[in-house]
Amino acid sequence: MLLLEYGEDCIVVDCGLAFPDEEQLGIDLVLPDISYLRGRSHQIRGIFISHGHEDHIGALPYLLPDLLPAPIFATRLTLGLIAVKLEGARLLDKADLRAFDPDRHPVLAAGAFAVEPFRVTHSIPDAVGFGIQTPAGRIVLTGDFKFDDTSIDGRMTDYARLQRFGDEGVRLLLSDCVHVESEGHTPSERVVGETYDRVFAEAGGRIFIATFASLIARIQQVIDIAHRHGRSVAVLGRSLVNNVRISQELGYLSDPHGVLVEAGAAASFPDERIVYVVTGAQGEPMAALSRIANGDHRDVTVGVGDTVIVSAAPIPGNETAVFRVINKLFQAGAEVIFGARDLVHVSGHASRDELRRMLDLTRPCHVIPMHGEHRHMALYADVAIEAGIPADEITFAENGDLIEMTSEKVAVTARVDSGYVYVDGMTVGEVGDVVVRDRRALARDGMLLVVVSVDRETGQIVAGPEIVTRGFVHIKESAALLTATKAHVRETLGDYADSYPTADRDSLSRQLREATAAFLFKETRRRPMILPMVLEV
Amino acid sequence: MLLLEYGEDCIVVDCGLAFPDEEQLGIDLVLPDISYLRGRSHQIRGIFISHGHEDHIGALPYLLPDLLPAPIFATRLTLGLIAVKLEGARLLDKADLRAFDPDRHPVLAAGAFAVEPFRVTHSIPDAVGFGIQTPAGRIVLTGDFKFDDTSIDGRMTDYARLQRFGDEGVRLLLSDCVHVESEGHTPSERVVGETYDRVFAEAGGRIFIATFASLIARIQQVIDIAHRHGRSVAVLGRSLVNNVRISQELGYLSDPHGVLVEAGAAASFPDERIVYVVTGAQGEPMAALSRIANGDHRDVTVGVGDTVIVSAAPIPGNETAVFRVINKLFQAGAEVIFGARDLVHVSGHASRDELRRMLDLTRPCHVIPMHGEHRHMALYADVAIEAGIPADEITFAENGDLIEMTSEKVAVTARVDSGYVYVDGMTVGEVGDVVVRDRRALARDGMLLVVVSVDRETGQIVAGPEIVTRGFVHIKESAALLTATKAHVRETLGDYADSYPTADRDSLSRQLREATAAFLFKETRRRPMILPMVLEV
Repeated sequence: MLLLEYGEDCIVVDCGLAFPDEEQLGIDLVLPDISYLRGRSHQIRGIFISHGHEDHIGALPYLLPDLLPAPIFATRLTLGLIAVKLEGARLLDKADLRAFDPDRHPVLAAGAFAVEPFRVTHSIPDAVGFGIQTPAGRIVLTGDFKFDDTSIDGRMTDYARLQRFGDEGVRLLLSDCVHVESEGHTPSERVVGETYDRVFAEAGGRIFIATFASLIARIQQVIDIAHRHGRSVAVLGRSLVNNVRISQELGYLSDPHGVLVEAGAAASFPDERIVYVVTGAQGEPMAALSRIANGDHRDVTVGVGDTVIVSAAPIPGNETAVFRVINKLFQAGAEVIFGARDLVHVSGHASRDELRRMLDLTRPCHVIPMHGEHRHMALYADVAIEAGIPADEITFAENGDLIEMTSEKVAVTARVDSGYVYVDGMTVGEVGDVVVRDRRALARDGMLLVVVSVDRETGQIVAGPEIVTRGFVHIKESAALLTATKAHVRETLGDYADSYPTADRDSLSRQLREATAAFLFKETRRRPMILPMVLEV
Repeated sequence: MLLLEYGEDCIVVDCGLAFPDEEQLGIDLVLPDISYLRGRSHQIRGIFISHGHEDHIGALPYLLPDLLPAPIFATRLTLGLIAVKLEGARLLDKADLRAFDPDRHPVLAAGAFAVEPFRVTHSIPDAVGFGIQTPAGRIVLTGDFKFDDTSIDGRMTDYARLQRFGDEGVRLLLSDCVHVESEGHTPSERVVGETYDRVFAEAGGRIFIATFASLIARIQQVIDIAHRHGRSVAVLGRSLVNNVRISQELGYLSDPHGVLVEAGAAASFPDERIVYVVTGAQGEPMAALSRIANGDHRDVTVGVGDTVIVSAAPIPGNETAVFRVINKLFQAGAEVIFGARDLVHVSGHASRDELRRMLDLTRPCHVIPMHGEHRHMALYADVAIEAGIPADEITFAENGDLIEMTSEKVAVTARVDSGYVYVDGMTVGEVGDVVVRDRRALARDGMLLVVVSVDRETGQIVAGPEIVTRGFVHIKESAALLTATKAHVRETLGDYADSYPTADRDSLSRQLREATAAFLFKETRRRPMILPMVLEV
């Protein structure tokens, strides 16, 4: 999420979410913290969305109430995907959705800003970047992009507009940089189709293709190639089914020969007449591909004679999960085609030469790489310097950085409150870093609760210590350890808690915790979370 | 760990451990389960170790007591590394360590087996494979290997011996397969030195090189190249310091010009006169590289002008941790050279062409790919079939499979009790799958304990319900929820527990748990682990 401010006017660009990393235990989703905007939503002149991926639209159902009444501007497909989300959150009737068509060269007025969307190629149709005219000069925000001169839908990154921006002057370029580690030029989506064509020609049994649900261009290729090879196509997995439906309704996916069939009907087709497009290319345990690999999908099995194409690269952190599924598929006897064997996926992001071309077209005074990790920014700076950008006209910014742009300079001048808000179950923002830290401690060594009941008059221990433990030791097999722990605690405390009732429950709790922790560490060299409890009766 | 049995004789090959995967929460190490061998250690004629990596020697300190009095056979360096481990476990005086030199072509008698070690190149010096003559024919076990014709120590995989085995007949080849996804031939270790040479020539400030502690050949290259560029070398990190010491003592690492210096002394060297070789290339949070990147290493800092070479490929599952460290180093202003930028690491394992060459040299009747995941085995089978091995002479085996080899056939005929034993703190085998499953549940939604004290005569609730929760909600910010939960539980139970004392404490516990769980799920859509406790007073 990017916020641009000038005087009393501001605009928001994109409103995405992140998925938790492996340390954010139990968290479902991670949202941006927008407390900086609190109470100022009336100043927001518009929310401009570059494309329909989760990391660009996913936070809208959670944050839109705090951004209203600002209108949301996006292309038709992007708005269609947003509408589904807002409907699920019962926000659709409150939202002000405004479609634009970048091919008509609209200039959208938004207070002090004039926003010109321009088409870019990315791994979802109808993606755009934004040229944003401000009183301090023009900003060009590339959005997520690549240059694909043979793109499947025939729509390409708008060279002419970028060239024009360059001719007129670009004060600041905010550029995609996540694929900068890749030399040269990202291959065209079309090369994946060439692999499909080859695999389809050889495959005897059923074909499964797992890919991203939003990669409509790839699904289009499956439809076209399946038709050439006399196969029908069935789609498995909720997000794929939804996206295929929306894309067909809005005209972004065409099936002129009617090869798409219902999953239910597909079961009766001969093996060599069907292709399944399935979710789960990232190894998600509940998605179609994992279920099929584990043999617990309701409708479909996989086995000897079948071919599975895992048409995606693992997102960093997902490698183990992806390979677990691939291993299972091999074990089931399927022929599995994946990245290490063939060209089954291309990125939707620009490689180094394309990032350079973007710089050459727009010729900005200043650049800020966006969305990447720090190593991507550093490598992007190499590209920018090669393109003639002086090193001091390259800024690395982090979430929460406040960047000031004048006609003279661009620089990070302050930081604002920012960070993350966790979504966990129905609760948004209630699970914070303290809770997650506790989860990490529980995950490491488990917990052990030790309870005593104490007479509130005399301080005598009338029941306990009792112990409850989980995630620490096997309870049945460790009965001796737990009995010894109880005895030790009892002995340490004495019949009467020394400091009780003169002191408070807290000090007795502390004694309980310390006695237990010390004993267990001595016995096991581990440090479960010790939770002491004193009940007064 | 591989076990070969004939009649009353058996031999063990390798005795390694695994590191826990991301689902084995809080576990330190994973050992093989050797219950199949229990009570039969007197039948073990020898433990043959192929090389000194953790996944081949790491379980010895834990399992050796159950394998004694069997002697351990290994090369000198491997035995040196084993001795350090056994000393730490106070087992050194009990162990029977027997060194062999593969260049002298020993044939080691071990009951029904005659074991001929042969030299292989791998990413640790002094690695071997084994030709094992058995009454049912010869087995060749490649160990972890590559073919490197320009290896740093001048010692190469023993083509001649492999060729001789092939000429004499190989009944079964057990082959490394983990790098089969790589086409062609794994580059020589020497190319990494070429990169170092280039980087050293350009670097102005300090140079840090992070690599595997056992990659002695690489450390040798650093020493040689540092000398050419007028730099001294200091080693940081316990495992590196130990391995460098042992390798020097045993003559596997040479420092003819005395460039190695103590880490303490290095601090006083000018920046352009020092190279640090450091641990932590896998992003391990407590290792030297992470500490340096985080700015909390005791002796060394990193900053603008310094160059860091991360000379390793992330082991699958470690990507996020590795990139986190790389990002931090860039943030600190260092120039970071890693896999995406230059050739800074080569594998120690054979690529497809080398696996093929091994097959061509040994010409086995039957092959079993070893150590790989199922996808590696499947891709290895492609290579074997290309090499002329019939598909039904390729067996995929898993941990616990019992394979029968006769002069007619090789096949999996049964499974034995096997699996994993977890090491957690001082305890070996006490933390099992149940405990780990509890840790996963605790990590997902936390826990909530609800306690009541009950009069054992009347069944009246005399104290509580009290609640203790961790990892579920922020306790201070969720006071209202916890108060409401207590009230709800109290109301549900009534003043007197219905079934109490006629029924048992268990049924009251169950009521407590169910009432609490239902209320919390309704309020939050989450399912923390509910632990009920009834204290009788």
